[in-house]
Amino acid sequence: MKSKHVLLDHGSGGLSSQELITGVFLPLLDNPVLFDLEDSAVVQARGCRLAFTTDSYVVDPIFFPGGDIGTLAVNGTINDLSMRGAEPLCLSAGLILEEGFPMADLERVMGALGEASRAAGVPVVTGDTKVVPRGKADKVFINTSGIGVVASGIEISSAKARPGDLVLVSGTMADHGVTILTRRAGLSLDGGLASDTMALHRLVQAMIEAGGPAIHSLRDPTRGGIATSLAEMARKAGVCIEIEESSVPVRPEVGAACEILGLDPFYLANEGKCLALVAPEKAPEILEAMRRRPEGRDAAVIGRVTDRPAGRVILKTAVGGSRLMEPLSGEPLPRIC
Amino acid sequence: MKSKHVLLDHGSGGLSSQELITGVFLPLLDNPVLFDLEDSAVVQARGCRLAFTTDSYVVDPIFFPGGDIGTLAVNGTINDLSMRGAEPLCLSAGLILEEGFPMADLERVMGALGEASRAAGVPVVTGDTKVVPRGKADKVFINTSGIGVVASGIEISSAKARPGDLVLVSGTMADHGVTILTRRAGLSLDGGLASDTMALHRLVQAMIEAGGPAIHSLRDPTRGGIATSLAEMARKAGVCIEIEESSVPVRPEVGAACEILGLDPFYLANEGKCLALVAPEKAPEILEAMRRRPEGRDAAVIGRVTDRPAGRVILKTAVGGSRLMEPLSGEPLPRIC
Repeated sequence: MKSKHVLLDHGSGGLSSQELITGVFLPLLDNPVLFDLEDSAVVQARGCRLAFTTDSYVVDPIFFPGGDIGTLAVNGTINDLSMRGAEPLCLSAGLILEEGFPMADLERVMGALGEASRAAGVPVVTGDTKVVPRGKADKVFINTSGIGVVASGIEISSAKARPGDLVLVSGTMADHGVTILTRRAGLSLDGGLASDTMALHRLVQAMIEAGGPAIHSLRDPTRGGIATSLAEMARKAGVCIEIEESSVPVRPEVGAACEILGLDPFYLANEGKCLALVAPEKAPEILEAMRRRPEGRDAAVIGRVTDRPAGRVILKTAVGGSRLMEPLSGEPLPRIC
Repeated sequence: MKSKHVLLDHGSGGLSSQELITGVFLPLLDNPVLFDLEDSAVVQARGCRLAFTTDSYVVDPIFFPGGDIGTLAVNGTINDLSMRGAEPLCLSAGLILEEGFPMADLERVMGALGEASRAAGVPVVTGDTKVVPRGKADKVFINTSGIGVVASGIEISSAKARPGDLVLVSGTMADHGVTILTRRAGLSLDGGLASDTMALHRLVQAMIEAGGPAIHSLRDPTRGGIATSLAEMARKAGVCIEIEESSVPVRPEVGAACEILGLDPFYLANEGKCLALVAPEKAPEILEAMRRRPEGRDAAVIGRVTDRPAGRVILKTAVGGSRLMEPLSGEPLPRIC
């Protein structure tokens, strides 16, 4: 039954988000590129293949261990471009500011945004600033959109996974989600929890150089975590994805925090990690290329693609059992990014 | 003296906005394309010239005579692309929704957005939806970014005005601003006040066909009105712009509402109008091409470009006097778009 109001869960990145998008938005905005629902759209412009993506960042708190809303806004949008194999070209920054927001905080956010952009080598070329009265927004919201160029021959999409493919992940899971949630819960868990926010375009470039067309699908598991991203990939490609629970890298302090908070790290957001579904014959070279870069130091094979049950993700647990891993549902974790 | 907090005036599109952008943002984000501060950035992508722009829409109320936030978001971004002579290719839509926003209103907004996109022939190809808790945003904010293709030979920019150029405007002034302000003041002024929100890409295409390189500068006078847009053009090109007050088309009902509210129509927002600075020898053909299209039915010559005083706009008043027309300053009209 459709809700009569927007719920927090509609923004979770999980099932309710999907229902809102496919049930309400797509029929009203019908066009085949949007229907792809990839991290970026790929469009043709006079013989040039472009990737195009947009994300609004509303994370609370705006400063957190390992990053801030400005850094997140740059890296997140670069990553969405990278997941189509695009070389990021430029970014936009659209700010919505709340009246009374301290100028010093704004400078800190924009300084971090500028630094992330320079570190990534992807300039912010256009922007917009709106201010709304006190109480009509919360401090600062940032939209970053991005354009990338997709080299010819590169055809990476969630729908391209094939039985036999291996599932790679570029590093540890849930660092960002757990950091924001503990911070917001007012917990001070020791052990150096920090967001993993990081731009992945150079990692993806190295993967493409090593694997070329053997890289079938890429996805950055942000809202909803790897459980939700894998479920979307399985559904779109019409395949089954089997994950070995014990192979998924999770930092011990993140695992401990998840236990304390009763959270599953497979459903928590990452902001500097990617999933890759790749042809098995090239998997060793791709994994090796990932591990050679700092962004992929902890890369691992975590599972494989089979044919049935189509559209499902199966988690092989550490104790030898197996269960379905469903996309995130009914668990509103608002403002995680 | 720099404010320690963000003020409503920083979002007005006038002097304070400029100070925030040039004083705070540009030094932190330094790159030459952003420094242009045009309605869109023009960037090179593998031999393809692209225009790229972003705008966040926070208008209050979200439904108003003549339009709504969804229509505005599509047309406004198309217009920013058009002001560089680009052919709009595609749009993104990034939504920030407030928890509890009625689903029926969301459907109405997205339906209007889809309709505006189809009417313009510019598809929304990628999107993002965030939800923030009740009281952390106001109903719905929409960011639309857009990509356009700039044909070779087209070099339209605010800095290109030359003494001798004529100043054209595509229609009546202040319709959007006056409509939003009267609505927000709770006034019901009769006479059919309505927003002029409208996509201008086909009008600009017709102007380019008629005038080619004679079109030096285009600008859509949104926040801050024509006074602010003309001041920016005069400053960037290092020229003086003289405007004949009596030549500027203003609908009688808009003029009357401005008088009642004590507002100057030259400082109020337009959402379906453009200013053009064009070489005088081609001005008749360009004006004729504008008037042949419904978007330019009321097009008029409203002034001319001279050499001095450089960087200034001079208003020749109806009674024969003349005064400087300064950019908008200290007059916060928040959430006009």
